[in-house]
Amino acid sequence: MSDQVKITCDELERDGFSQIPLFECIVAEVSEENKSKEGFTTVGYALYFYIYSTWKGRSMYLEDLYVMPEFRGFGIGKSLLSTVAKVAKEKQCVRLQLNVLDWHTSARDFYAAKGARDLTVEEGWHLIRFDGQGLDHLANEAPKN
Amino acid sequence: MSDQVKITCDELERDGFSQIPLFECIVAEVSEENKSKEGFTTVGYALYFYIYSTWKGRSMYLEDLYVMPEFRGFGIGKSLLSTVAKVAKEKQCVRLQLNVLDWHTSARDFYAAKGARDLTVEEGWHLIRFDGQGLDHLANEAPKN
Repeated sequence: MSDQVKITCDELERDGFSQIPLFECIVAEVSEENKSKEGFTTVGYALYFYIYSTWKGRSMYLEDLYVMPEFRGFGIGKSLLSTVAKVAKEKQCVRLQLNVLDWHTSARDFYAAKGARDLTVEEGWHLIRFDGQGLDHLANEAPKN
Repeated sequence: MSDQVKITCDELERDGFSQIPLFECIVAEVSEENKSKEGFTTVGYALYFYIYSTWKGRSMYLEDLYVMPEFRGFGIGKSLLSTVAKVAKEKQCVRLQLNVLDWHTSARDFYAAKGARDLTVEEGWHLIRFDGQGLDHLANEAPKN
């Protein structure tokens, strides 16, 4: 689905490393002798940022959790996820949230096994999005003053 | 459900008005002569913050959209929502997202009528949450170094 990626490496660097970073990232590294087939030692990452609940205060959102296929099955994903949770607790976040696709059963099972609740199943939460022309139209209807 | 609200007014003020605010807010005000039964001129608000997509970049999340019951039906909610969309566009956000409960049909219809897509219905996205003991346990499993 890489045709849907509209962001460049320069933009990611600007957004993550500016004075007010838009996200934070934890990376998983292996030693030089265990590097990937293509020569990389960074083999996974977790990218997260802070969100807010007017009921509970500061919370954390996990946007991406990725481990290269050849490094799966060694607990790297679990270590990344638990480290994100540790940072969340250190930053006084009372929630760690994320979204998964319902056909992605391995991901759903992974998070459930780690103690997550599925709020779409439990409480009926739906994710709603304005984008493209829908967002443009809505913005154009804003009062002028 | 006010027993579930764990945040105080002092905390809200600290979190929204510190050097790096955790959220932004737009309020709807009426003139003194139109004030509410209880004497308020601020009769609605929209509270939002910035999120991030590694595919699309900076996005916006609408956490709360509220209008006092006695002021509903005048288009205040629509004005707040479209103003949030306008700010999103000004801040180069390509998405405005929110979550609604599936039994809350008036809210779902409201957003759909304004051009929103329901990604839980369209694509099968589920909202996943770690909190309470689940989050504590996960954090405790983090590698020590």
